[in-house]
Amino acid sequence: MQPTGRTLPVALDAMGGDHAPGEIVAGAVRAVRERGVPVVLVGHPRVLHQELAGHDAVTEIPIVRAEEALAMNEGALASLRRPRSSIAVACHLVRRGDACAVVSAGSTAGVVATGRLRLRAQQGVVRPAIAVGLPTLPQPTVLLDAGATADAKPEMLVQFAHLGVAYAEAVLATRRPRVGLLTIGAEAEKGNKLAKRAHELLVATPGIDFVGNVEGHDLLTGKADVVVTDGFTGNVALKTVEGTVRYTFDQFREAIADSRLARLGGMLQRARLRELAGRLDPEAHGGAVLLGLNGTVVIAHGSSRARGVAAACELAARLSAQGVVARIGERIAAGNRSHRRR
Amino acid sequence: MQPTGRTLPVALDAMGGDHAPGEIVAGAVRAVRERGVPVVLVGHPRVLHQELAGHDAVTEIPIVRAEEALAMNEGALASLRRPRSSIAVACHLVRRGDACAVVSAGSTAGVVATGRLRLRAQQGVVRPAIAVGLPTLPQPTVLLDAGATADAKPEMLVQFAHLGVAYAEAVLATRRPRVGLLTIGAEAEKGNKLAKRAHELLVATPGIDFVGNVEGHDLLTGKADVVVTDGFTGNVALKTVEGTVRYTFDQFREAIADSRLARLGGMLQRARLRELAGRLDPEAHGGAVLLGLNGTVVIAHGSSRARGVAAACELAARLSAQGVVARIGERIAAGNRSHRRR
Repeated sequence: MQPTGRTLPVALDAMGGDHAPGEIVAGAVRAVRERGVPVVLVGHPRVLHQELAGHDAVTEIPIVRAEEALAMNEGALASLRRPRSSIAVACHLVRRGDACAVVSAGSTAGVVATGRLRLRAQQGVVRPAIAVGLPTLPQPTVLLDAGATADAKPEMLVQFAHLGVAYAEAVLATRRPRVGLLTIGAEAEKGNKLAKRAHELLVATPGIDFVGNVEGHDLLTGKADVVVTDGFTGNVALKTVEGTVRYTFDQFREAIADSRLARLGGMLQRARLRELAGRLDPEAHGGAVLLGLNGTVVIAHGSSRARGVAAACELAARLSAQGVVARIGERIAAGNRSHRRR
Repeated sequence: MQPTGRTLPVALDAMGGDHAPGEIVAGAVRAVRERGVPVVLVGHPRVLHQELAGHDAVTEIPIVRAEEALAMNEGALASLRRPRSSIAVACHLVRRGDACAVVSAGSTAGVVATGRLRLRAQQGVVRPAIAVGLPTLPQPTVLLDAGATADAKPEMLVQFAHLGVAYAEAVLATRRPRVGLLTIGAEAEKGNKLAKRAHELLVATPGIDFVGNVEGHDLLTGKADVVVTDGFTGNVALKTVEGTVRYTFDQFREAIADSRLARLGGMLQRARLRELAGRLDPEAHGGAVLLGLNGTVVIAHGSSRARGVAAACELAARLSAQGVVARIGERIAAGNRSHRRR
């Protein structure tokens, strides 16, 4: 989708992430040059200017000054203490219409808290949620909430379904996404109190194609296009997927590197394995998206390198171009209207 | 550990499981002949007699009559409706001292409910928990609760730590097992309300070597020997591990079967891959253990075949021989005493 007129840049928090600012700036350069995504860097001007100079990109990418940065181990409260942090300034750029979206590889808790404070929740949205794409084939399964709201209420899970559907429609072009509820048994009465009540509400929600309960082993089988859960369970599930992919992959590599014969076989397969590793790499997907705020926020993996940062910028630009915030607004408003009618 | 005098048999629910009774009886025969574990089969005498005859094992394995069976899709309430189900009769054999442990591949909810009703919780244990061994190297990480108590209280998670430590000491011979709390960040204040309060309690619990929070990606890295969580999160995490191992494995197999060259390589590695697949197979570990009741109960995977059933019987006999019930009793009593002193 080609936006008319001037394309707004992505506001990239240059100070957040394990490899900031070096890899963040390198990612910005790749986003601009390889993916055609305009970016503005937010952070310490002198440091960023120096990094850009190293890429011969001083004239290509503008810098917006931010005096402070949130450390990776700083949590939600730091966002109150640091109103001029790079992530806060990036949010401010979106708020006043100078950027289309925010990207940060900073601490998730810090990004969520700052985003809520600076961009505010969309009208009618009780709590934001983090959506991630799991590497399901043929296309990603959207899991949310992956960690924004640890103690959720059943009504919030219904809203998360709307957020996830809007995301799947906008980013993955899924038609009428099927929504599943993550719980511990296929039958409606299986689960904890939260999941059981959320199941009842989802069954009765118009505009949601609810396909019922899904379990942990269904996350990668494509049984649902969107899987909703609370932020605690979702974060545990996401990190369990990531850790188990890594574990199984390492076991596999060890198994085929363990004898001379096997080593020969392994050499034959190296190219294919590299392709597979790339597909399972969380960096390839661009990161998690904080949904439900008045502005698009992409949270890249804290360990992101240039490639992951560039992918996150592209994802942010796509979310903005597809108008995911407006789509969510319409869904939530329609949901609240139908709720009042009942 | 060699028990003195007559070794009590394992009471095996012959009617529970996707492949009951055929594979269950075949598993009993393998347990007796290959692993030296005495077994008594519980179920329909005529059917079981016929199955045993097929293995030429009528004189080797006794049968105890049970009129009814819980269907795989029957939940907790069915245990009340069917006091003469095969799983209820198996529990009764343990209760009156005619068997050392129960093994069932039946519906988890049905086994948990029947176990609680027929064997009762051990003195001082508020809720039982399901412990499973994850395929961590060099030795399994014990995860609990994997699904017995979906809505847990913080105090229960402390008890689960005692149950898990007793299990790790008895079955895995781990000295001073390190206990971790499954949550969504390394810092103490990360998590939902349940996890945050459980963290505070675990820090203050004597007799527990609490190493702090662990996350989903730590489950297979051996960061802790025992990982505690509520039954909802634990069940989601366990099934996510299982599903992700299967997914990654399938992806890997596809990647190496996809070209002629790669196929050649794959042939070279077949033996090694089979060994790896065996290690990652949940059946190899014998199943989940329901801890905290007055008797040992092993819940084999519903899809278990003979090998898995035999492994479950061996695990049950080992738990019983190592006195895991008594060890739990001592830990809970000591915990309650130190609690009263404070």
